[in-house]
Amino acid sequence: MSDQDIKQSYENSSKRMRGTPATFGASLTEKDYNDPNLHADLDTKHTINYNNIDKMPSDMRKVHEWQREHIKTDDQSKEGYPLNVIIDPAMREMYQVVHNAEMTNVFDRFAQQQPIQCKYCVEGLSCQLCANGPCRINHKVPRGVCGVDAHTMVARNFMYRHVTIGTSANIFHAHQAARTLKAAGQHPESGLKIRDKDKLLKYSDMAGLDTSKSIEELAVDFADWVINDIHSPNHLPSKSVEAFAPTKRKELWNKLGLFPGGGYSEVAYAQTRCMTNFSSDPVDFLLNSVRLGIANEYQGLFLLDIVQEILMGTPEITTKQQNMGLLDENKINIVTNGHMPLLAHVAIDLASTDKWQEKAKAAGASGIQILGHVCEGQQLINYEGTHHEKAYGGQEGEWLSQEYLLATGVIDLFMFDYNCTVPTMPIFAKKFGTKLLSTHPVIKLQGTETLDFIPEKMNEQAEKALDKAIESFKERKTENKSTYIPPHKSDCMVGFSTESVRNALGGSFDPLIEQIANGNIRGIATIVGCTTARYGQGGSNIFKITKGLIENNILVLSGGCTSSVMEYTGLTNPNAADEAGEGLKAVCKQLGIPPVLTYGACVDIGKMTHTAKELADALNVDTNKLPLVIGAPEYLEQKAVADACTAVALGWLVHIAPVPSITGSDLVVKTLTETTETLELGKVVVEMDAEKTIKIYIDHIEKKRKELGLN
Amino acid sequence: MSDQDIKQSYENSSKRMRGTPATFGASLTEKDYNDPNLHADLDTKHTINYNNIDKMPSDMRKVHEWQREHIKTDDQSKEGYPLNVIIDPAMREMYQVVHNAEMTNVFDRFAQQQPIQCKYCVEGLSCQLCANGPCRINHKVPRGVCGVDAHTMVARNFMYRHVTIGTSANIFHAHQAARTLKAAGQHPESGLKIRDKDKLLKYSDMAGLDTSKSIEELAVDFADWVINDIHSPNHLPSKSVEAFAPTKRKELWNKLGLFPGGGYSEVAYAQTRCMTNFSSDPVDFLLNSVRLGIANEYQGLFLLDIVQEILMGTPEITTKQQNMGLLDENKINIVTNGHMPLLAHVAIDLASTDKWQEKAKAAGASGIQILGHVCEGQQLINYEGTHHEKAYGGQEGEWLSQEYLLATGVIDLFMFDYNCTVPTMPIFAKKFGTKLLSTHPVIKLQGTETLDFIPEKMNEQAEKALDKAIESFKERKTENKSTYIPPHKSDCMVGFSTESVRNALGGSFDPLIEQIANGNIRGIATIVGCTTARYGQGGSNIFKITKGLIENNILVLSGGCTSSVMEYTGLTNPNAADEAGEGLKAVCKQLGIPPVLTYGACVDIGKMTHTAKELADALNVDTNKLPLVIGAPEYLEQKAVADACTAVALGWLVHIAPVPSITGSDLVVKTLTETTETLELGKVVVEMDAEKTIKIYIDHIEKKRKELGLN
Repeated sequence: MSDQDIKQSYENSSKRMRGTPATFGASLTEKDYNDPNLHADLDTKHTINYNNIDKMPSDMRKVHEWQREHIKTDDQSKEGYPLNVIIDPAMREMYQVVHNAEMTNVFDRFAQQQPIQCKYCVEGLSCQLCANGPCRINHKVPRGVCGVDAHTMVARNFMYRHVTIGTSANIFHAHQAARTLKAAGQHPESGLKIRDKDKLLKYSDMAGLDTSKSIEELAVDFADWVINDIHSPNHLPSKSVEAFAPTKRKELWNKLGLFPGGGYSEVAYAQTRCMTNFSSDPVDFLLNSVRLGIANEYQGLFLLDIVQEILMGTPEITTKQQNMGLLDENKINIVTNGHMPLLAHVAIDLASTDKWQEKAKAAGASGIQILGHVCEGQQLINYEGTHHEKAYGGQEGEWLSQEYLLATGVIDLFMFDYNCTVPTMPIFAKKFGTKLLSTHPVIKLQGTETLDFIPEKMNEQAEKALDKAIESFKERKTENKSTYIPPHKSDCMVGFSTESVRNALGGSFDPLIEQIANGNIRGIATIVGCTTARYGQGGSNIFKITKGLIENNILVLSGGCTSSVMEYTGLTNPNAADEAGEGLKAVCKQLGIPPVLTYGACVDIGKMTHTAKELADALNVDTNKLPLVIGAPEYLEQKAVADACTAVALGWLVHIAPVPSITGSDLVVKTLTETTETLELGKVVVEMDAEKTIKIYIDHIEKKRKELGLN
Repeated sequence: MSDQDIKQSYENSSKRMRGTPATFGASLTEKDYNDPNLHADLDTKHTINYNNIDKMPSDMRKVHEWQREHIKTDDQSKEGYPLNVIIDPAMREMYQVVHNAEMTNVFDRFAQQQPIQCKYCVEGLSCQLCANGPCRINHKVPRGVCGVDAHTMVARNFMYRHVTIGTSANIFHAHQAARTLKAAGQHPESGLKIRDKDKLLKYSDMAGLDTSKSIEELAVDFADWVINDIHSPNHLPSKSVEAFAPTKRKELWNKLGLFPGGGYSEVAYAQTRCMTNFSSDPVDFLLNSVRLGIANEYQGLFLLDIVQEILMGTPEITTKQQNMGLLDENKINIVTNGHMPLLAHVAIDLASTDKWQEKAKAAGASGIQILGHVCEGQQLINYEGTHHEKAYGGQEGEWLSQEYLLATGVIDLFMFDYNCTVPTMPIFAKKFGTKLLSTHPVIKLQGTETLDFIPEKMNEQAEKALDKAIESFKERKTENKSTYIPPHKSDCMVGFSTESVRNALGGSFDPLIEQIANGNIRGIATIVGCTTARYGQGGSNIFKITKGLIENNILVLSGGCTSSVMEYTGLTNPNAADEAGEGLKAVCKQLGIPPVLTYGACVDIGKMTHTAKELADALNVDTNKLPLVIGAPEYLEQKAVADACTAVALGWLVHIAPVPSITGSDLVVKTLTETTETLELGKVVVEMDAEKTIKIYIDHIEKKRKELGLN
């Protein structure tokens, strides 16, 4: 991007900020808020009582014991919901506060939806694309008005509702990260740093760039290379895929016509395919979804991970803490939420300076801390660049807990970027005195301030956010409302990544391969993705499955809200080695690591595929030969679906639960669960029961071991 | 694109063609076809009887009289459906053939869907985005599991189900046209021609390119300029919008933050916004839809029209024919369907050569003809480059008639590109001996051959298509099945466009402006878009409204399947001037034109906005001041929704019917039907009744006249 372009970008952005009529959305929203019929739950006159709840033991060892007993005795079904699924001790307490006050909240809303849920939609047999519809399909009425059959309807819904959205989002993320890297190279006043220079050099070299340039120039070149690949046309092969994907996979993808071009162009082509009366070959929609999965990985996850590590520091293994017990009544508490901690990490750097800590004290606080929530938090807890920053406060929780988090009454600023900020946050913010701040114009909440995304000005924007938090703290103290902080916090070993694991192994993956070969470790399962509010889920399915896997000597990598579950259940504590099978236990004890290695966020799946690629390279096999299973036992949203398509592209077994909305077509189900494997792609398996899931993982890993000639 | 890039493109494409396992989709599809439960309608043992139907008079004057009487006396409601709405004489006959044989068909499917249609989906109050859902919203359950309210759910559904898909499709189209123009400049052996050199020069100059280069080089430069703008990042202002949009509009869009960047990036950003737990400001979704509407116009419709006219010749006013009566039992009949006649026009050039006509004769045919169907046909009938080609056979019909068209039994090849090819065509093709051929890999039908899109090899590909048609003809003659060709065909004046209208007016729009100023013509209505299978529609709503408008001295421009309706009802015949009000009648008689000017296809809306811009420029006013209404009285699909967003961006009143799925949110309805106008944007009006619609148009035009100081 030339300086002229950047200037244009500023001007455009500024115009946008100036131009959007601030009162326009707000006034309409107000009307909306005042409609008593549709928005009874917006009434904020609820009475909050922090005492009338069943509190959990404040000793985390006792909490962990309770969690282990609880999942044995309770079936997590509809009876006793949702307290039978909420095993996060902090969320468990705060849920009761919110529920007792009769405020809207995610678990109660799930229960309310069940009686009106539509069976057609559950099965993918409902289409709302054109004005001759909406149409539904059943055995008596086997086609929509246009003539679409069940198979095409289900496959098309799958692609346009889930895969294109998830793929767009991950590539969008990589795009914003690259813009930020470019600003780091060009604008030192932005507060951005290039922390991992070696990584920049390594990947620039793989991209074929001239690495003799200065680090700053190279940052710009690599960023441009990323941005250009994302924006290149559909019919030209992607340079990122060419540079970073495993050789044998690339050959297969070429053979199958799945080698993608530029990601945004791929998305637009895919959307085009979903026009009414356009494509009507269900298999083509599914194969194209796999193609999008490849773009999702190499122009999304993989690139965003590299770029963010260059900016924020490649993870190093360390010990940190998690959960609401980290909040401090007397500190200015900022929670940063989302998946893209680009502004957040500048804010942490800034807040860690004496100047800002003093400012906080001048406002009557004992200090200022920034805690990460959801995947943003899982990234911040891992990055080397955050580890020693004074103002970094630790990891909060998973996405399900955000409404309950605000209900503590001590969150002064909740800043958020892309995804996992629920639409009800303005209600909770209003009720509990939290200020909200969106840090990218693609994310707008009703009546909430939005910053434009200008990486060149991040320092300035971070200052604005901190000032806002101080202001909010002052108001909190003036109003002197009652608050409650659940005392729970877990100690966790964090910071696992391809590099940090390899370093811990002494610089090579050989020791790990040896342990896999000798059978101490039977294989690897990545337990990734979200948590859902469903019966039997809410984190408890993840916990049960992971427990079963480590007991069977399967090393678990986690990423996403699953990492929060691993943290609040103690599974990322080295002590958890005692819960593993004998082989895995011995390895963990020897290395001083837990049996669950948190790679961070759902967007850190790119790092796991990277580790897997390195393992496959070390074994000189294609990725689909590894004794590896990908699991998303509580997947929620569209990125997870795109990520599942990535895993299928890479040849892996992907377990998902809950049941996706594809059951209306036996053809679609068969294609994704059987046929793709015959093409040397991976396949999907759907299973809701934890015990059966564990068996599926073990069987697959043992099958792969056998194919590799391992006992 | 460099030669190396093109080579890569070929190789990639060839790999794709070789690589896709041909039997994979087919074998699965076969299983699908053999499932008796879901696919009873795939049985092709239906008995066809061409005699047991009520035939229409073969004299078109009598048909036109019947049509005019019919819409007076019949209310087009559920009773008597669908024959009460089908006013195309050919479709009316063929519907009976297909219905009597109990074959699946669009009108019967519409009736079958009604009992199971979902009220939530109708209102936009159903969401299927995440695994906590699907959710539905009503007054008792006002939020989805995530917390989404009715307004956000409706607005988000509107954007991701309709606007992003439609916008992608139009930009995709412009992208493919630009690739073709580039091939025309670089590869004379492709069979592509640069027919309108002046147009290339004019728009290259407006784009700021060096027009001193050769035409071939300039074609490449302009194509690259188009492709680069489509692929540029979201946050950089689009060069196409900058170059071609009205100045006053650009100022407004900048002020409102609606000035778009690169179109594909815009689409991907918009999809990203639709992630679960992401944006939840309904007004933001709607304003962003208007922003997409601007990209839809200037990177889609406008560019594709220019590029296609450069390739196929800017329309000239002439007289042609329409409808199934143009088919010839003894000719090789090729129908080309879709919206992007890039390969089709090369095939017409080729088929018009003596060599191919001789080939046809050698196969026992009296010749070979290519007829256009749907919007592809509306484009081909208008382009100057088609007007004198021997093998061009005329325009077939609207999208609703394609199943009935194949039922004639004389279509040897049905080739199709992007959109409006219904999923049941393989059934009809199998039953009636038609070969199917997709001409772009984004469009795949079950068990149907697909060509890759390689503009550099269009000559070769067109030859392949013609050979296929000859083969098919031979099989038809061998099998000697019974056939029936409805004898109906209409004479139409076609070829209207900004340039041809201006030329007809003597080189300036002043005479037209004068007629508007003196009140002979009260204003202009564009009646564009699709036809639907709905009660009261099926073409009859378009006909009723248009009749009413011309009677009230409103000049009508048509584009899309509406043009087919205008053609088969005789409204594009200069004789129809007699049906217009006195003022309009006088103008039409003087110029020898009909009161309805067909601009061609739905994708030719870009030409209408161009004419409107020229009129506004001549009057020195902003586009929103014109006495103009945009109507889509039977809109069907996503491009129509994106086009409506374009019209709102340009400040126009847009009438749509049927009712879009937004009624679940009063806020969304109010924003689109009222609030946008207060921002100097246009607005939407929804009205199902033809008489009321006419009144709305007249009132709006009279209001605009008053504002301009006209009586």
